[in-house]
Amino acid sequence: MADTLKLWSFHTSPFAGKVRVALAEKDVPVELIEIHPARRPARLRELNPLGRVPVLEVDDVALSESAVILEWLEETHPSPALWPADPQQRALARASACWVDEALLTNYFGGLRRKTFGVLADEREDEGDRLLARLGRQWPRLEAALAGRDGPWLMGETFTYADVGGMPLAVRLPQWTEQLAPDPDAFPLSAAWLQALRERPSAPAAEARGPERIEG
Amino acid sequence: MADTLKLWSFHTSPFAGKVRVALAEKDVPVELIEIHPARRPARLRELNPLGRVPVLEVDDVALSESAVILEWLEETHPSPALWPADPQQRALARASACWVDEALLTNYFGGLRRKTFGVLADEREDEGDRLLARLGRQWPRLEAALAGRDGPWLMGETFTYADVGGMPLAVRLPQWTEQLAPDPDAFPLSAAWLQALRERPSAPAAEARGPERIEG
Repeated sequence: MADTLKLWSFHTSPFAGKVRVALAEKDVPVELIEIHPARRPARLRELNPLGRVPVLEVDDVALSESAVILEWLEETHPSPALWPADPQQRALARASACWVDEALLTNYFGGLRRKTFGVLADEREDEGDRLLARLGRQWPRLEAALAGRDGPWLMGETFTYADVGGMPLAVRLPQWTEQLAPDPDAFPLSAAWLQALRERPSAPAAEARGPERIEG
Repeated sequence: MADTLKLWSFHTSPFAGKVRVALAEKDVPVELIEIHPARRPARLRELNPLGRVPVLEVDDVALSESAVILEWLEETHPSPALWPADPQQRALARASACWVDEALLTNYFGGLRRKTFGVLADEREDEGDRLLARLGRQWPRLEAALAGRDGPWLMGETFTYADVGGMPLAVRLPQWTEQLAPDPDAFPLSAAWLQALRERPSAPAAEARGPERIEG
């Protein structure tokens, strides 16, 4: 790859945040192009008809879907490895990453987004509260998952993309909604996991913001 | 792998169906364990706390999430390849597979399931109709995606897991809800894609049903 990677990003997007953190973990340089969700550039819609970030421009190809971008990153920048080497363990880590996306990120950030920017046209008015309530029901599951491991991370001693996915949540919970964080007395492993994530050198990438792309 | 793979499955589940079709495309033998969603076996919940199918038992490990199972399958049974070899093309194929899951399978099967079995406790009453209406809005996007290719499949001449994901929809649309299928005059490429899927030798796997697991 001759050119610097370009990542279309929004600083509060958890899925863009996951990709920024993964690139930081791999020490891969990237040029961030910040969008605003209410003013999505026409160029972004050319790259991804859904208009969503993250989109990673690699040479003349535009890659979308954060999970897909992470797979591409692992294949093209294998060191340090962020998936386990063994196929079965890798499958378990991928399933854990799916769970983090669906149970934690989608509920938290989707809930907050609806409460801040409004619900979609075909959604009910309280969709934001419904998603945040769903987040609260995940802590016992997170605690149980971490209790079955022999280390601080979701796969135990090995830090993987499943943990990368937790980073945007770890960084934003205390900034935005400390009352929604897991109670450390009830869920000590979950609270420790979030704290360990915040202490990684890659944590600032979870909220990194590039210069905004202005339509011209 | 000494033992035959065991797949916890439900014959109308599109995500179990994707895995059954992928195994058939790879000619990998599998023992199906049929569940009924209203009587999920305790053993299934031990293997996957979410209680969902598909779950693939591999030796003493239980793999869940259909996309994860397909990645494992590709890594352990690489021939015939169902992802492109080039990392960029593979990323585009994975993004296409995500889109099929989210835009086609989730809306169609999620909509029908709610209309048949009822909505979840925190969903609104018309959630089933809302999802089916969303399906109808995907045909122009599918048509545009296929129009940009140089072959019958979502990645052009190469059949991939993105197409595998379309198989449960292709098989069930005419059986269950012909009126929801894309109009072949308006969306000829989409209609042809669904027909080409139905003509593959793996198509019967999309509706395959094993003996039901009885709790004892």
